[in-house]
Amino acid sequence: MATAAFTIQARQPGSLARAGLLHTAHGDVRTPAFVPLATKATVKGLLPEEVAALGFEMVLGNTFHLHLRPGEELIERLGGLHGFMGWPGPIITDSGGFQVFSMGHGTVADEIKGRSPHGSAGRVGSILSIDEAGVRFRSYVDGRERFLSPERSMAIQAALGADIALVFDECTPFHVERGYTENSTLRTHRWLERCLDWHAEHGPAGQLVYGIVQGGVFEDMRRDSARVVAASACEGIAIGGSLGDHKEQMYEVVGWAMEELGGEHEERPRHLLGIGDIDDLIRGVELGVDTFDCAIPTRLGRHGCALVPDPARRWRLDLLKGRSREDPAPLQDGCPCPACSGGLSRAYLSYLVRAKELTGMRLLTLHNLTFMAGLMRELREAILAGTLAEVAGAWRGGEKHPHA
Amino acid sequence: MATAAFTIQARQPGSLARAGLLHTAHGDVRTPAFVPLATKATVKGLLPEEVAALGFEMVLGNTFHLHLRPGEELIERLGGLHGFMGWPGPIITDSGGFQVFSMGHGTVADEIKGRSPHGSAGRVGSILSIDEAGVRFRSYVDGRERFLSPERSMAIQAALGADIALVFDECTPFHVERGYTENSTLRTHRWLERCLDWHAEHGPAGQLVYGIVQGGVFEDMRRDSARVVAASACEGIAIGGSLGDHKEQMYEVVGWAMEELGGEHEERPRHLLGIGDIDDLIRGVELGVDTFDCAIPTRLGRHGCALVPDPARRWRLDLLKGRSREDPAPLQDGCPCPACSGGLSRAYLSYLVRAKELTGMRLLTLHNLTFMAGLMRELREAILAGTLAEVAGAWRGGEKHPHA
Repeated sequence: MATAAFTIQARQPGSLARAGLLHTAHGDVRTPAFVPLATKATVKGLLPEEVAALGFEMVLGNTFHLHLRPGEELIERLGGLHGFMGWPGPIITDSGGFQVFSMGHGTVADEIKGRSPHGSAGRVGSILSIDEAGVRFRSYVDGRERFLSPERSMAIQAALGADIALVFDECTPFHVERGYTENSTLRTHRWLERCLDWHAEHGPAGQLVYGIVQGGVFEDMRRDSARVVAASACEGIAIGGSLGDHKEQMYEVVGWAMEELGGEHEERPRHLLGIGDIDDLIRGVELGVDTFDCAIPTRLGRHGCALVPDPARRWRLDLLKGRSREDPAPLQDGCPCPACSGGLSRAYLSYLVRAKELTGMRLLTLHNLTFMAGLMRELREAILAGTLAEVAGAWRGGEKHPHA
Repeated sequence: MATAAFTIQARQPGSLARAGLLHTAHGDVRTPAFVPLATKATVKGLLPEEVAALGFEMVLGNTFHLHLRPGEELIERLGGLHGFMGWPGPIITDSGGFQVFSMGHGTVADEIKGRSPHGSAGRVGSILSIDEAGVRFRSYVDGRERFLSPERSMAIQAALGADIALVFDECTPFHVERGYTENSTLRTHRWLERCLDWHAEHGPAGQLVYGIVQGGVFEDMRRDSARVVAASACEGIAIGGSLGDHKEQMYEVVGWAMEELGGEHEERPRHLLGIGDIDDLIRGVELGVDTFDCAIPTRLGRHGCALVPDPARRWRLDLLKGRSREDPAPLQDGCPCPACSGGLSRAYLSYLVRAKELTGMRLLTLHNLTFMAGLMRELREAILAGTLAEVAGAWRGGEKHPHA
């Protein structure tokens, strides 16, 4: 189903990559693009104009967290999420499905790190019941009982005034059996229809809805889920859920979905949820993903890690370790971020991180987002110029980085 | 003793207030001026260019904290404090005396709040011995034994490359007896001479030294201490120690010192240590103080308090309380800070503070420093225009504020 939400400007021969324009009620987003998280109505530590100045055109807010605090009623009264947080550009909101189900399943991060879901559940709240109607849980903010469902999630996203709403899904974890994933995916499909029904009747004019492809790591279910979502009335498509326990499996799983989303469906924009490692972004673009969101670049920054062109170390420099403590060099020569262009040394940044100074978190957040914006800009320009293979190769080899 | 460190540009008839230019190796500071704290080599959450853009020309670093981490050797290798933190303008450094003695005495804040010094000592480290040579204590960073003395403090401030070094003093608390204060003040005077002797031999070219007036709340001792400091070779004079347990007493104590610092000594710049309430700044300027430093505006900001023109509430708006939670108004109409000029509501700021978001701390810090800069600019302009009495009165009445 063709839609006016997306214009493909160029395709890269020999790959599924494309460059495009995502059209929203608050402006266009040039793709491929990385979408910084404004989970709780702010990109942590940054002002809206700073986020825009870095080159980002869209941010991602979170239905679950904003519903619990300060509540969508207040945000709606204060001009919706755009007015509330002072961000005039496009906003996509996550549906809350991931957060709600993380209480029961544990998060993907817990899974990777071997943490028990119970530990995590204690942190974010607790589930009281899950059934076809929706999920009942206890708020981590005030302990009150709350309820989220497809309709409630869409109503909240309508009140928030999101340009792009995501449907309410169950984010199935990796460690469950095929039978669990199958039931969960089928329920996600039923919830997709309920979300679209609610939106058709009550959704705000101009708000786009993205369906979410689930299906775990099972090829038949992933492909089937992609076909079901593609056959629905949604304007865009997100890939969610567990994508596997290593990168090659993730690329395979995303690839299955992308194959099903080609052909007659290719004019719909595609979003890959929660993925943001440098190599994953490059591969995601090659697989035809248009937008990505992820906590990694900002979270790394708040914990003392800087993004640098060093593929052997996953593009990460941990300022708490090793020689950084006395290193007079900037994070990266030529980088236009305030830390690098201001002549601040790795030693200074390492010191700020050790002293737990807010300025350190902020400088590293700005640097990392500058790096991300530079990467995405280069990938987009490469697609427009037909040089993606070379540019991606140079990035993977560490020969290329945003300012080289 | 006249000195080239300060030029008086205008005096306000009927008060001791003056407007001037403080000349340092890294540029001039227009006075009266507030000096934001960069205790640990950063104004918490702000970049150097942001501090400058607010209108501040000097910041204050801390010898005690920077000595313990990252150490003055590293800072010196990386271009001194100016290069290390990327601040090209004037820097004044506190001597560490206040912090060291706070471990034993408890801080003035502890005193006001009735906290025991032992609780505070556990937080910042612990004193091992105090004698004429100096103070031996345990570092709060790594538990190692450290030693500070007049000579060590001056050597550290030389390595930091401070434009203005403060002499190492004992900051006497309020709750001690007259006998304690007397002994302590006499030792501070002996330490003043040791600091000046060290500086005469080893001090960096262009570094100014400020002596510190002690003497507690006893008129004879305050006046005597002011005379002793004024008779020394220091280029500027700071007022330190306990100033009393209420504002009128503080103004009286500062007034005694200021009377002694008039006449032949008036060409020396005067700094009031650790004072920063709005009414105290206004009165301090009227008493002839040229510069002030204080944690209040930035600390209030990090804890959810905004400065507003409301004298009845000590110019403070606590965003955690009352109607702010749903208030669509900005903190202050016409204020050029990012929060107010960006149309962000009190409700949004209240939410950010409750959610403990870094952006909230940052926005309130920027707002509060904008308020401080505006106040000091207006007081200076009033002295230059001969209208200080009216301007100060309007501020005290809440009729005037930085953008009215």
